[in-house]
Amino acid sequence: MSRIITLTTDFGLTDEYVGVIKGVILTRAPEAIIVDLSHGIERQNIRQAALLVKSAYRFFPERTIHLVVVDPGVGSYRKLILLQADGHFFLAPDNGVLGLLLEAEHFQAAYEVECQQYYLTPVSTTFHGRDILAPVAAEVAAGLAPEAVGPRISPRALKKIETKAAKIDRDQRTITGEIISMDHFGNLQTNITGNSLNNLYGKQKSTVTIKVKDQIITGIQSAYIERAAGEMLAIVNSKGNLEIAVNRGNAAIFLGSAIGEKVTVAG
Amino acid sequence: MSRIITLTTDFGLTDEYVGVIKGVILTRAPEAIIVDLSHGIERQNIRQAALLVKSAYRFFPERTIHLVVVDPGVGSYRKLILLQADGHFFLAPDNGVLGLLLEAEHFQAAYEVECQQYYLTPVSTTFHGRDILAPVAAEVAAGLAPEAVGPRISPRALKKIETKAAKIDRDQRTITGEIISMDHFGNLQTNITGNSLNNLYGKQKSTVTIKVKDQIITGIQSAYIERAAGEMLAIVNSKGNLEIAVNRGNAAIFLGSAIGEKVTVAG
Amino acid sequence: MSRIITLTTDFGLTDEYVGVIKGVILTRAPEAIIVDLSHGIERQNIRQAALLVKSAYRFFPERTIHLVVVDPGVGSYRKLILLQADGHFFLAPDNGVLGLLLEAEHFQAAYEVECQQYYLTPVSTTFHGRDILAPVAAEVAAGLAPEAVGPRISPRALKKIETKAAKIDRDQRTITGEIISMDHFGNLQTNITGNSLNNLYGKQKSTVTIKVKDQIITGIQSAYIERAAGEMLAIVNSKGNLEIAVNRGNAAIFLGSAIGEKVTVAG
Repeated sequence: MSRIITLTTDFGLTDEYVGVIKGVILTRAPEAIIVDLSHGIERQNIRQAALLVKSAYRFFPERTIHLVVVDPGVGSYRKLILLQADGHFFLAPDNGVLGLLLEAEHFQAAYEVECQQYYLTPVSTTFHGRDILAPVAAEVAAGLAPEAVGPRISPRALKKIETKAAKIDRDQRTITGEIISMDHFGNLQTNITGNSLNNLYGKQKSTVTIKVKDQIITGIQSAYIERAAGEMLAIVNSKGNLEIAVNRGNAAIFLGSAIGEKVTVAG
Repeated sequence: MSRIITLTTDFGLTDEYVGVIKGVILTRAPEAIIVDLSHGIERQNIRQAALLVKSAYRFFPERTIHLVVVDPGVGSYRKLILLQADGHFFLAPDNGVLGLLLEAEHFQAAYEVECQQYYLTPVSTTFHGRDILAPVAAEVAAGLAPEAVGPRISPRALKKIETKAAKIDRDQRTITGEIISMDHFGNLQTNITGNSLNNLYGKQKSTVTIKVKDQIITGIQSAYIERAAGEMLAIVNSKGNLEIAVNRGNAAIFLGSAIGEKVTVAG
Repeated sequence: MSRIITLTTDFGLTDEYVGVIKGVILTRAPEAIIVDLSHGIERQNIRQAALLVKSAYRFFPERTIHLVVVDPGVGSYRKLILLQADGHFFLAPDNGVLGLLLEAEHFQAAYEVECQQYYLTPVSTTFHGRDILAPVAAEVAAGLAPEAVGPRISPRALKKIETKAAKIDRDQRTITGEIISMDHFGNLQTNITGNSLNNLYGKQKSTVTIKVKDQIITGIQSAYIERAAGEMLAIVNSKGNLEIAVNRGNAAIFLGSAIGEKVTVAG
């Protein structure tokens, strides 16, 4: 039994919303350890939340409960889901955030949250994170069996959001992908995996070229510091994906690039 | 005995000030659980801090200690107060923040903090949050009786800040209030309570009109999603107050409205 | 044995990086208490990180582990160091951050981190905070002896960064220093210590003049409130240094001043 609950929301840190969720959890589960993953998700950006949780969850102990409250449909009917996958629990509205997680990870079970006896009363129509998800997370942390939250449902019933996989052309020896996220340092993460680079180019990674906008980068480095300060480079990042970076600089500003920008590897 | 201490300050998160307060607390009360409510209070905005704590405190267990460090008068003589109200403790400078909390809540006792034996030494003139309030909060969390912090004082002795209540005109069937806060999503909270709407309009809430600036909203919705994306709406929010919002949008930007803007309900 | 680990990084709070570090720590040391000092260090600003940790660490219990991840050289060869000083542990890349701390504090021992058996595997080249420093901090928190992390090294081996001390001219009765940091309130901290002011001017602090840019401030106040709202003043701040402030205002904006600006005291 893990006592850890992580929080991922689009609430920001100025309002009391995150603190209130913690208050609700600690009232029900005084021994819970609450860890903020991010409250800086762009408002209602389900895809960003899903990518972030997907990058982070495996660094927590098994049975950690990952609460994701990015909920544009709050107050309307949409399922709330408790998902067991890869040894972890995920609790979120069924708006695609869990579908994206599911893609890559081993599904174990999913339950529709219906255990109204555990909700705060009255349930507001604007803050289900506080009134439903936080108390249910706390109950699971305090030992409630997953099947007690509601009926088991099929993974096929979970809403999916379209994801764009990189395209690998073995004949042309190219991989075409795109930028899927940028971080605080302006590093640009692509959907091109280190594994796909290994498979296609093997050890010849110093000679491949990476094209993004009107820039050509030669070779894939193994550390930022292998290029001079201010110089652009490509690297397989700590999440295992190809990343465009500038040593001691900001690739997002350098390139004027944004999420969705095309990236092509050839070699 | 609660071990939970919440923190509300105008310190921001870039400097070490919040971390230092946590260090002082954990040195004295190693078992304390510290929860950030907000460190994004506008510099020296006592009213914003009071509203935020008032919205949040009841979601924590009884006996939680709510430390509020928004302290424009630091270094001058102003009382520091430990207030017991509604089963919770509040610890703050006597600058109005507690008076605003008191308005609505059940007063139990108030004490002027004078227990210098618990202060850090020397006490600086610029950071009483660190040198006085944090160690006293820790001592109370660790079991110090409230009456041991200093002499009991009357609630009438606490400084008040003026609050503007909404005006209800039963003959004209109107309620006139104003915007009192806006959140990360641009939702505009008014000082018009859901209770006052229920009392005046009963079940006819679909036909009332809400006027703000040059905009007229018809009806009070029960979920954001009842209006189309980008459309303005009125709703009773999760704090129980009338709120102006835009479904999947930002009402503050949409209206160009700010705190203090007049809102009139008629029906 | 302290269970407290503080975190100081330039990661910001939008990405999952800080949360991931906490996950790694809690996986290895479930009883650890993790406190954020700041994640708002300017990207790769080692000096700012060092000053912040130096101001903060002594407010934590002895044996607290202070993890500092500002690491422009990640992926290149630079030592990772566990430093014992003034009863605390400091864990950081050897890029000057520990050297600056060492200046003022009592050195006890330093070890080069080489205990690969405790690292996450594989170790990425871009996130040693996650793969090396976090697990080692957790092991030390969980009881690993400092000498088990790697070979003991001399304090002289630690990289230093140049610091500019204020110049005291006893004949001219002047102290010349500079602004070394500014906080969320726009208060400007100098490298002129309260002790040096006491030594040179004794009790005549109401008659000294402080010159910064084209402004002259007369006297050193003992509280912000001793000057009218909006008025500039000098004060010895809660860190023991001379600070330029504006009562209920923002000295950084008022003066248009920045870090490095010259400040001269005469009297």
